[in-house]
Amino acid sequence: MGYFDVASGAPLHDVARQALLASIDEGWADPARLYREGRRARLLLDAAREAAAEAVGCRPDELVFTSSGTRAVHEGVAGALAGRRRAGRRLAVSAVEHSAVLHSAAAHQGAGGVVDEVGVDRTGAVRVAEYAAALRPDTALAALQSANHEVGTVQPVEEVAEACREAGVPLFVDAAQSLAWGPVPGPWSLLAGSAHKWGGPAGVGLLVVRKGVRFAPQGPADERESGRAAGFENIPAIVAAAASLRAVRAEAAADSARLRELTARIRERVPALVPDVEVVGDPERRLPHLVTFSCLYVDGETVLHELDRAGFSVSSGSSCTSSTLTPSHVLRAMGVVSEGNVRVSLPLGVEAAEVERFLDVLPGVVSGVREKLGAPVAGPAGSAEAVTVDALGMVCPQPVIELGRAILSVRVGGTVTVVADDEVAAVDIPAWCFTQGHDYLGATPGPDGATSYVVRRAP
Amino acid sequence: MGYFDVASGAPLHDVARQALLASIDEGWADPARLYREGRRARLLLDAAREAAAEAVGCRPDELVFTSSGTRAVHEGVAGALAGRRRAGRRLAVSAVEHSAVLHSAAAHQGAGGVVDEVGVDRTGAVRVAEYAAALRPDTALAALQSANHEVGTVQPVEEVAEACREAGVPLFVDAAQSLAWGPVPGPWSLLAGSAHKWGGPAGVGLLVVRKGVRFAPQGPADERESGRAAGFENIPAIVAAAASLRAVRAEAAADSARLRELTARIRERVPALVPDVEVVGDPERRLPHLVTFSCLYVDGETVLHELDRAGFSVSSGSSCTSSTLTPSHVLRAMGVVSEGNVRVSLPLGVEAAEVERFLDVLPGVVSGVREKLGAPVAGPAGSAEAVTVDALGMVCPQPVIELGRAILSVRVGGTVTVVADDEVAAVDIPAWCFTQGHDYLGATPGPDGATSYVVRRAP
Repeated sequence: MGYFDVASGAPLHDVARQALLASIDEGWADPARLYREGRRARLLLDAAREAAAEAVGCRPDELVFTSSGTRAVHEGVAGALAGRRRAGRRLAVSAVEHSAVLHSAAAHQGAGGVVDEVGVDRTGAVRVAEYAAALRPDTALAALQSANHEVGTVQPVEEVAEACREAGVPLFVDAAQSLAWGPVPGPWSLLAGSAHKWGGPAGVGLLVVRKGVRFAPQGPADERESGRAAGFENIPAIVAAAASLRAVRAEAAADSARLRELTARIRERVPALVPDVEVVGDPERRLPHLVTFSCLYVDGETVLHELDRAGFSVSSGSSCTSSTLTPSHVLRAMGVVSEGNVRVSLPLGVEAAEVERFLDVLPGVVSGVREKLGAPVAGPAGSAEAVTVDALGMVCPQPVIELGRAILSVRVGGTVTVVADDEVAAVDIPAWCFTQGHDYLGATPGPDGATSYVVRRAP
Repeated sequence: MGYFDVASGAPLHDVARQALLASIDEGWADPARLYREGRRARLLLDAAREAAAEAVGCRPDELVFTSSGTRAVHEGVAGALAGRRRAGRRLAVSAVEHSAVLHSAAAHQGAGGVVDEVGVDRTGAVRVAEYAAALRPDTALAALQSANHEVGTVQPVEEVAEACREAGVPLFVDAAQSLAWGPVPGPWSLLAGSAHKWGGPAGVGLLVVRKGVRFAPQGPADERESGRAAGFENIPAIVAAAASLRAVRAEAAADSARLRELTARIRERVPALVPDVEVVGDPERRLPHLVTFSCLYVDGETVLHELDRAGFSVSSGSSCTSSTLTPSHVLRAMGVVSEGNVRVSLPLGVEAAEVERFLDVLPGVVSGVREKLGAPVAGPAGSAEAVTVDALGMVCPQPVIELGRAILSVRVGGTVTVVADDEVAAVDIPAWCFTQGHDYLGATPGPDGATSYVVRRAP
């Protein structure tokens, strides 16, 4: 079976399992108590903190364990913003942060703060100069992920951290996707991680606040974890998390080059095997194990379902696979196709044969879905001068399919106007034009949420 | 070995351990994903929610799992207050709530809210009429624990819940200490629990919000657990928590009467074996397994240390065993002696012989500490008319020891004035008078935090 979604969560690593079992008997008591059971728990907690700090590259007293990576982000961003309240109320974030960061930003905005969103290029990376320009005298905090969770692009964290240091702004790094691969370089100020992303148990995150960084924990007071993470410590899980991080680091170092080749092979083969595909994310500066592509004219949910039936578990940033019916904000910010989006994130030690089998299965899955949906096939230009397509009420990927069909009927230089009310069209029609080489002439909003998108046929 | 501190945290129950191990392999994936690993995780999560809801006595869709009991309290109180903001900004709490509730109340106050604290009687229980009188038209929320965590007194939750219902105020019940013993009766609106208190793993709490109760989750948005508990669900731990709650309920029902006898024996024997002891908490309306007493003229830390050396792990609400150097707010609100405080909370299945051994060991431990500290021994009245004791700079239990010595030197009707700057004296000197039968005449504040306490010798 091919579980190719470790970016969502990895199965428990054997080292984590062993550490968990061993510490269930030793680490269940309250580490704040002075009796023997409490002292034993405290020793385990201290040792886990030292191990995790060493792996992250910080001092043990700079690191606290939270109940999840999400919590580490929420507490970290809120505490850093409050600690720097005198400096100002601006928060800079990249447009492709994890939702935990963006939800923290939204909460800040809801409380009267200001959020400056820094855009990304078509690979999903921020530009250092653009990020630096977003730092203002009243910027309290800047946030940048170490690597993107949907497309794998590695961000220029070190350079941005330098720019932040020059500007006197602390940088918060969401390192959830990259911590298995190594420490985050550069003079960052705060960092968050999530154990179940690296093969540790769920229920453990870590938050690092460098010495000297102003930090004011928010929410009701609680004395545990230096007042930065409320609630009784889950020591067996913490021990398992720390132990597995060290073990995974060693394995990741050994397997990194091979995984990078496997994902490079997917990057290269998928466009050759499946027509009308866009592979997204930076081809070089990327996580070794993660690759993402979007297939035109299919809906992500059906593709995922068919891949699941074929034994492959992957995820998708397509709108039709999420409860919100909006496409991934990451793909939107990158300006790439969101329909038929597939993210593959390979586990350490995955067999090459499994990846080959995935490549064998994928073309049939995509063509099967396309056939059902009546997707267009590229063809010669037609003769019409201008065609208007009524795609009102249709949802992704249907408006783009209608566009793809209509474009076949117009002459080179002729136009197709798509009238659609699915908001995904605003992402996917321009992205489709980019991938197909046609000219996107723009969109005009109409009544009742309908928008007219105009496309000119290229040769 | 006698681990007599299950009120702090219980070792992992065997059923919890087995459930944890079984679900580590099945429940690690993201339950929001549609592939097979995600669906399996979702099934486990749903089944755990149903089992927990049945044990609590609520609908499954009213219950979410949080990352700790503390978090359940924090999120529950904040969400209920925000949901009822239009009704007003008053929060009613008993004076003896767990710190998680009181810290939530302090945060509410810090944000401009008003907190009405309802006092307790000398057993630690609120009076229903007094609680009802504290409910005002603009009371947004009321909070009352099901049973007190330090002295075991069971609160009149059902009656207070009825009074709240009549007043149209939702009642939040912190059921952390009692959930192992059964569901909480009455028409309460919100409820919080903590798995590691009943033998489940750390890292799992539960929050119940009854249908129809206005609730607005606070903090950054997160779609998990109905938006009420941010962060990736720790499903193996949740499964273990739910499974062990059911198992523990059955065992608790079977062992309850026996534990009640064992704690009744401690309540009865300790004052007979150790002079100058006050057993606190309600002798009847109490948790079966928990008993608390305070020993005059000793410091709690040394007693705990000596008991630990003798193989017994207990806790204490004395000031000298906490990092804050203030005595337990519970003992203070009850007006009972806080020095030399010992809380015994027996595990299910504890052997009676272990309890007897504790009773054998305790008198020697207490008398040893008293001897070292030079504690007074009761004796005939002296001849002095009025004695003043300078206890400035002395900390608990020394000012009371000085008082106990000085009282020996005055005649019946004579007075002792103690000048002390240890704030614990304000709790312990009146409580000492109560237990010893002398008349407490009051306190007069002086300069530099010094206070003069006046005591008149009774026959």
